[in-house]
Amino acid sequence: MKEHYDAFSRQAANYVPLSPLSFLERTAAIFPARTAIIYNERRYSWSEVKDRVSRVAAQLVAMGIKPGDTVSVMAANTPEMFELHYAVPLTGAVLNTINTRLEPETVAYILDHSDAKLVFVDTAFSDVVKKAFDINEAIVPAVDIIDAQGPGGACIGSSTYDQLVKEGDPDFPWQGPGDEWDALALNYTSGTSGRPKGVVYHHRGAYLMCMGTPQAWELPRHPVYLYSVPMFHCNGWCHAWTMTLMAGTIVCIRQITGEAVFRLIAEHQITHLGGAPIVLSMLLNTPEDQRKAISHKVKVMTAGAPPPAAVLAGVKQLGLEVMQVYGLTETYGHVAQCLWREEWDDLSADVQAERQSWQGVGFPMTETIDVIDRDTGVSVPWDGETQGEIVIRSNTVMKGYYKNPEATADGFSGGRFNSGDAAIRHQNGYIQIRDRLKDVIISGGENISSVEVEGVLHRHPDVVLAAVVALPDETWGEVPCAFVELKDGSAETEESLIGFCRENMAGFKRPKKIVFTELPKTATGKIQKFVLRQQARSIAETAV
Amino acid sequence: MKEHYDAFSRQAANYVPLSPLSFLERTAAIFPARTAIIYNERRYSWSEVKDRVSRVAAQLVAMGIKPGDTVSVMAANTPEMFELHYAVPLTGAVLNTINTRLEPETVAYILDHSDAKLVFVDTAFSDVVKKAFDINEAIVPAVDIIDAQGPGGACIGSSTYDQLVKEGDPDFPWQGPGDEWDALALNYTSGTSGRPKGVVYHHRGAYLMCMGTPQAWELPRHPVYLYSVPMFHCNGWCHAWTMTLMAGTIVCIRQITGEAVFRLIAEHQITHLGGAPIVLSMLLNTPEDQRKAISHKVKVMTAGAPPPAAVLAGVKQLGLEVMQVYGLTETYGHVAQCLWREEWDDLSADVQAERQSWQGVGFPMTETIDVIDRDTGVSVPWDGETQGEIVIRSNTVMKGYYKNPEATADGFSGGRFNSGDAAIRHQNGYIQIRDRLKDVIISGGENISSVEVEGVLHRHPDVVLAAVVALPDETWGEVPCAFVELKDGSAETEESLIGFCRENMAGFKRPKKIVFTELPKTATGKIQKFVLRQQARSIAETAV
Repeated sequence: MKEHYDAFSRQAANYVPLSPLSFLERTAAIFPARTAIIYNERRYSWSEVKDRVSRVAAQLVAMGIKPGDTVSVMAANTPEMFELHYAVPLTGAVLNTINTRLEPETVAYILDHSDAKLVFVDTAFSDVVKKAFDINEAIVPAVDIIDAQGPGGACIGSSTYDQLVKEGDPDFPWQGPGDEWDALALNYTSGTSGRPKGVVYHHRGAYLMCMGTPQAWELPRHPVYLYSVPMFHCNGWCHAWTMTLMAGTIVCIRQITGEAVFRLIAEHQITHLGGAPIVLSMLLNTPEDQRKAISHKVKVMTAGAPPPAAVLAGVKQLGLEVMQVYGLTETYGHVAQCLWREEWDDLSADVQAERQSWQGVGFPMTETIDVIDRDTGVSVPWDGETQGEIVIRSNTVMKGYYKNPEATADGFSGGRFNSGDAAIRHQNGYIQIRDRLKDVIISGGENISSVEVEGVLHRHPDVVLAAVVALPDETWGEVPCAFVELKDGSAETEESLIGFCRENMAGFKRPKKIVFTELPKTATGKIQKFVLRQQARSIAETAV
Repeated sequence: MKEHYDAFSRQAANYVPLSPLSFLERTAAIFPARTAIIYNERRYSWSEVKDRVSRVAAQLVAMGIKPGDTVSVMAANTPEMFELHYAVPLTGAVLNTINTRLEPETVAYILDHSDAKLVFVDTAFSDVVKKAFDINEAIVPAVDIIDAQGPGGACIGSSTYDQLVKEGDPDFPWQGPGDEWDALALNYTSGTSGRPKGVVYHHRGAYLMCMGTPQAWELPRHPVYLYSVPMFHCNGWCHAWTMTLMAGTIVCIRQITGEAVFRLIAEHQITHLGGAPIVLSMLLNTPEDQRKAISHKVKVMTAGAPPPAAVLAGVKQLGLEVMQVYGLTETYGHVAQCLWREEWDDLSADVQAERQSWQGVGFPMTETIDVIDRDTGVSVPWDGETQGEIVIRSNTVMKGYYKNPEATADGFSGGRFNSGDAAIRHQNGYIQIRDRLKDVIISGGENISSVEVEGVLHRHPDVVLAAVVALPDETWGEVPCAFVELKDGSAETEESLIGFCRENMAGFKRPKKIVFTELPKTATGKIQKFVLRQQARSIAETAV
């Protein structure tokens, strides 16, 4: 009877707020001596990591950090960065990792907007942070991370990370949040336009992200994980916490080069890694004499613009098994995955590579991911054609944007998170991204997917990178304009490349203008289409 | 700043109550055509299962079932039983599966105490249910499950399961609970003494149970699972839901025999199964001509009294990889597992088997499992000697006992669930059960573990089964008394077996009395020690 079933209150025995903090406590207890972190010559076991984390947390409290305070970090993927993913939340404070490629102005904005009470700074970035202080005319108390493997740089803090470890109390009480809805992290989006927004994560979401990832990726116990995804990016897709759950070994890498990745894969028998597709291209472009043979299976998660088919085919030959995933900062990282289907086993390599580039289906912890007509809110048909917007309902959707109720309400309108990404659904329900909505080019009333045009350009052997945006046009409204990086020594011309496009796509989709140039990129390697759009507008104005 | 971080309210986009109902929705969408259930000649795909579940749910609502109502089921492990794990909660009602081995009196008690509004009855058990109605002088509306593979039996309901499927609306809205704390299932304990207690599960706990199990068992995608654990037992360890999450194939089995298990493993290439250790013995005792060769790896989860080392060694040779787990009805099934350790690889087979029988460490979703001194509440030292009580804090601990606030408060006293199981912790933290607390024999002030004495007796080649309880004794307070089943034709006597014990254990632990008899067992096969204790008391009284 309902009244009897509803009569139970939550108890300490049967209700524990979900938090990734639980993972380190468990793994350190079960596998204290197992290697947790490897960074060049440095090695820490799980009990050592827990000990170091506890000490740093104790010192944070001693320095006045309170629950709900923001603690910023500007650091490379070193053990310190990993440990701060536990030490800061252990105090109840909120971890704000800052993109290390940002310029002082944006860092200044983030330090100010986030209400940072303290900032950990790898000395490689102390110069940028100091400039940010100057811009803000406000200094945030700083702790220096001195990495012997880094490029050096001045200390700007009153203490160092090592001092915190040395002086902290290893018996700092290990306690999760009082409420699983409490904030855990604050990640500023590196949008391609406008001011970055502060995305707030909670403990519940991060816990569920980590619980769902192993099933999606078929993670075994004790994966050996190369941390090639920057931890400042969606907390490194929450893998710092996930790998703790799996009692894995995390291999840190500061500077990603093809040579280094090959070497670490071979040396540590890396089983898993993640990264932007650029990492795959980098591996393929590594000279033979800098490669190491990979004799075991390596699983790779990639996100962002899907790698071209040729790249996928190439890395497959290297022994890498690639899974494309999809997500946003607002969704803690990946919420969709291109789950391989048994019926694809017999397809041709080309078709397989094309399938592999789809964004696919929801992760286990993703409640719903759908593609809807933006005007009607109705799901698009699974016809592989009709475009709509990707929308998500999930416990791994952010709490909202920090101090920005308007943007939060806007993002959540309609009872789901509106991604702003345009996509279609194939007949099997798999999602494939077409474009950011604002990247759709509307020419003579026809929608042109810039991703599609870019895909054709990428098939040309001389094209290294291509980005397509709208060029304002008196007749058609907009026409596609391509910005292209060519291989050194290529003899291609605007005319010859347009000719290539003519043979490979519908006429109205063909770029009417091609500019050969190095493409502008954000700190995370995303192409800055808004810069290209400005250039296209200049071109149009000049032409008039 | 805390006030800013706390300013976010839950939204439809970012807060979805956790429920295993999500798993079927997702898997049916992603793998609609994949085989979900196999039962003899019957086969259902995931889309068919979802369709059937929706129809049954629609008919349940049509029959007046409301959220918070109890729906009982007395059925074997057939597709219907599996589907009811979704159809009943889909309506918001609570699933009460009843042990099919129970006698009419207890079934009557459960139907009455649970406030059952409807009962699904496999016709094999209609006779028992009818007798229960007679005892209660109250009829619960019934739906018959007619299984062509079953032994027959009368229909006692006004409709059949097949009719519900036929007449139900496949478009019944798929909706999770309004609150993840809502009741999902009601499972009566088959305690070894006293009235069964109704253990209430909630959606949150079952969801987390399923999310944590794949990591613990390293479940791959698409496991092929032989459902040898009765689904009436802790909802079959929640594996009905877990296997849905993994898009596995569930092979149902009605009558467990060695021949059938071998046949199904070979025919369907079973990858995973669970069961009491008796299943392992059954396999080992299967005559050669009824066996099928197992050429692939089969992972087996066992719970209950750990299998003897000889059994573990035997099944290993068959190709089975056994993991011992520990849990109770109150914890949704397993919360601890004997996680294999790399450093055990080089141990002798005997020692390995002994290690394998430990209860081990917590599952990923188990927050804490500890062994404490019952008087002081302090954790026992990890010395492999000091006994204490296993206590658990986990989101997979029940809401409480249905309509029994006293037992609930008692079970949760001290802010954790008190298991009533006595255990030690080894130096690596692994837990090993010694006894139910009430099974500890206190002789001359020394604690004697009845499990330990039973372990020695089981090493005797002629002993099939042994149970040890306290025999009241004027001098020592209590002394161990053993009840033993011998192999047919054994020439062992009480004296010779006591002699065997003398050679193999400390004198004070040696049974002072041995009775040869068939041991009384509960419906789930647990030895009814309370019956043996009564017998022991009679023996003591007779002796006086």
